Amino acid sequence: MEKADILIYGCTILPMNEKCLIQDGALATKNRRIIFVGKRASANKIKAEIEINAKKKIAMPGLINCHTHVPMTLFRGIAEDQPLGTWLKETIWPLEAKLKSEDVYVGALLGCLEMIKNGTTCFADMYFHEDMVAKAVEKSGLRGVLAEGIIEAGNKARGEKMLNESINLAKKFRGYANGRVTTLLGPHAAYSCSPELLTKIKNKSLELNVGVHIHLAESKEMFRKFEKRYRPTEVEFLDKIDFFSVHVLAAHCISLSGEDMQILSKRGVNAVYVPVANMKLGVGAAKVKDLTDLGVNVGLGTDGPASNNTLDMFETMKIATLLQKLVYLNPKILPVHEVLRMATVNGAKALGLGKTIGSLEVGKKADIILIDPSKPHLKPLHNIYASVVYSAHGSDVDTVIVDGNIVMENRKVKTLDEQAVMERAEKTSLDLLAR
Amino acid sequence: MEKADILIYGCTILPMNEKCLIQDGALATKNRRIIFVGKRASANKIKAEIEINAKKKIAMPGLINCHTHVPMTLFRGIAEDQPLGTWLKETIWPLEAKLKSEDVYVGALLGCLEMIKNGTTCFADMYFHEDMVAKAVEKSGLRGVLAEGIIEAGNKARGEKMLNESINLAKKFRGYANGRVTTLLGPHAAYSCSPELLTKIKNKSLELNVGVHIHLAESKEMFRKFEKRYRPTEVEFLDKIDFFSVHVLAAHCISLSGEDMQILSKRGVNAVYVPVANMKLGVGAAKVKDLTDLGVNVGLGTDGPASNNTLDMFETMKIATLLQKLVYLNPKILPVHEVLRMATVNGAKALGLGKTIGSLEVGKKADIILIDPSKPHLKPLHNIYASVVYSAHGSDVDTVIVDGNIVMENRKVKTLDEQAVMERAEKTSLDLLAR
Repeated sequence: MEKADILIYGCTILPMNEKCLIQDGALATKNRRIIFVGKRASANKIKAEIEINAKKKIAMPGLINCHTHVPMTLFRGIAEDQPLGTWLKETIWPLEAKLKSEDVYVGALLGCLEMIKNGTTCFADMYFHEDMVAKAVEKSGLRGVLAEGIIEAGNKARGEKMLNESINLAKKFRGYANGRVTTLLGPHAAYSCSPELLTKIKNKSLELNVGVHIHLAESKEMFRKFEKRYRPTEVEFLDKIDFFSVHVLAAHCISLSGEDMQILSKRGVNAVYVPVANMKLGVGAAKVKDLTDLGVNVGLGTDGPASNNTLDMFETMKIATLLQKLVYLNPKILPVHEVLRMATVNGAKALGLGKTIGSLEVGKKADIILIDPSKPHLKPLHNIYASVVYSAHGSDVDTVIVDGNIVMENRKVKTLDEQAVMERAEKTSLDLLAR
Repeated sequence: MEKADILIYGCTILPMNEKCLIQDGALATKNRRIIFVGKRASANKIKAEIEINAKKKIAMPGLINCHTHVPMTLFRGIAEDQPLGTWLKETIWPLEAKLKSEDVYVGALLGCLEMIKNGTTCFADMYFHEDMVAKAVEKSGLRGVLAEGIIEAGNKARGEKMLNESINLAKKFRGYANGRVTTLLGPHAAYSCSPELLTKIKNKSLELNVGVHIHLAESKEMFRKFEKRYRPTEVEFLDKIDFFSVHVLAAHCISLSGEDMQILSKRGVNAVYVPVANMKLGVGAAKVKDLTDLGVNVGLGTDGPASNNTLDMFETMKIATLLQKLVYLNPKILPVHEVLRMATVNGAKALGLGKTIGSLEVGKKADIILIDPSKPHLKPLHNIYASVVYSAHGSDVDTVIVDGNIVMENRKVKTLDEQAVMERAEKTSLDLLAR
């Protein structure tokens, strides 16, 4: 057999496909892809350039964050415990108006560093100067599904300009960083873009064969304002203009009627459940069981680090299941294996990467994390799924592999100078506040 | 000036009393107590046996976990995503019936190790063989407020026996481990003890001058069953037998009427808000703002590690504020400084230790933690309170001092052999399942 690039052996593997967990397993990669997953005993003929003894560790697919705005690390802690509207109008928007392209790069690098340290290997981002997020993805070694945001907000010329920028980003950076970057168009929301612009975006999406990333039914307040203007619900309105004929990644999905959910199901819209930011902003909770019962594919997201305030998908997995149990007053809702699927396979599918990542199986790209359970809060290890969801933290991730490349080993990030990234972000953030 | 025992300098201090945070601060301890808190510049004459350069770190009081059952670490992950009744009857109670005194010690040691690593310095526990928890507290160096549980459950003789054990524990271990152990009586709940037994407990509590630790209004189901038997609510019933005339630490406090809350306020009952376990078991959420608006003192608890599944008070602080914002659909509810008070000063008061611990001020016992914010998820550090609550994890705690003794330094626990404690707990847990 040809020599593999990396062989990881001795670990318990959660493949996150239809197969059960594998004890004393082995994983091998070659040319950025997984070429073997199985029992260690069956891998004894595999030789590799790099061999990792992962005895007592847990291997699973890298976590997938389906909705964030990573450059907002710069705003972490700047405005707290405020309503969405106040938060945006009084703090975030005035600061964003001062943001330079270089700042976005610095903030995105800090976000990428944080994600690597927490075992996230792929994220869907929507922001401005998104080309800089692409550069941070390239530099950090992560995988990103990137969209330049489009907010028309009553200004037609601005809408057109942002649409063009979004198209440019989608075209230029599709396949960037050795294919680790894919792109989407980024209409901010149904209420912040006109029907005409949304129709144009949908047509462009079909033409370019890229999907869209949009905020949907996040806030009751916004929803009400929207209803006044357009009568139907956000979802009904978008359906009417045939917006859901493209691949849609719809973040939040809180304020939905039964009919809305039926439409999302029928049209194959991908919902992103964002429990932490939704709770923090006091906007409510998505009814995830209702959505999944209708067959809607649901991924998980953290939202931007200024409204969370981390990019930690382990924390998000735990809070995701806790919140659903509370919403339905039923501890059986969203059991641990389901929330793990949301953070891996279902997330991959939501990003249009279902065939590429999300599970550990031969042929998929090698996005793998190793968790070290030799910590008091992970002992005893009776139920690995439960331990990963309810007990593990991002800091328990030991090794991160993205696209067959070791990005973190023994918690040391290999692609970035951790200290320099943190210092530069702090400096940039203070500079931004002083502008 | 006499030589201090420990001098910590250069850190930002969150004293958690009425004073603001101190930048470039210093803390000194002598004979287990704090003898200086202030600006570093004012501490330049202090010499100490041990001097800790804590530049760029954050010093705050050790976190206080007001409700747990630490030996249940042994059951972590054994039964997941089940309703409270099923969980107790089908898994927990049969296992607890097989528990030996030694098992409790092993489980409690693991719990103490986990708490030290997460920056918790004091916890209120209720379990069986609680003398073994006292031994684990002694060994680990933590501070504990311990109660032997009393569950009569229709069996009078059993009730009497357990009451006697609870009294014995309270008498024998009061002031144990150099005063780090204090005791309470542990009636499990109003529905699991008869009015006669509860009255006896209350009288004993007055006689011995110890408080009680009880589960109160946790589950609507239990509440309904109770209502049928006794007519009034749990709170009204307990008030009627004058149960609240003693110091009461009441965990959960979810299913409360407006009148119940008035009673808790009037009688000075201390409530413990337990957000994670309450969500996980799908029982509901305490209305903390209603309670605090009435002047009820509220502490924070994790509950046992089998229904959480950690003992991490940082995680509990974050989820505590997220959940209240959701309950009231208002992001301003339970702002970061208030949740920090619950986990420190208010927790201390709830445990009857308000004059001893809970804040960093001269004369109080030296229970201090240092947080290392040189991590990507804690950058930039615009708002230290928000960073501690929303971004920090237990693993960001660097140093833990309890009763003037350094229990953890640079994340290395000095009082316990970490590896040995974990291995012994795993072995005991497997042995228990095989019995």
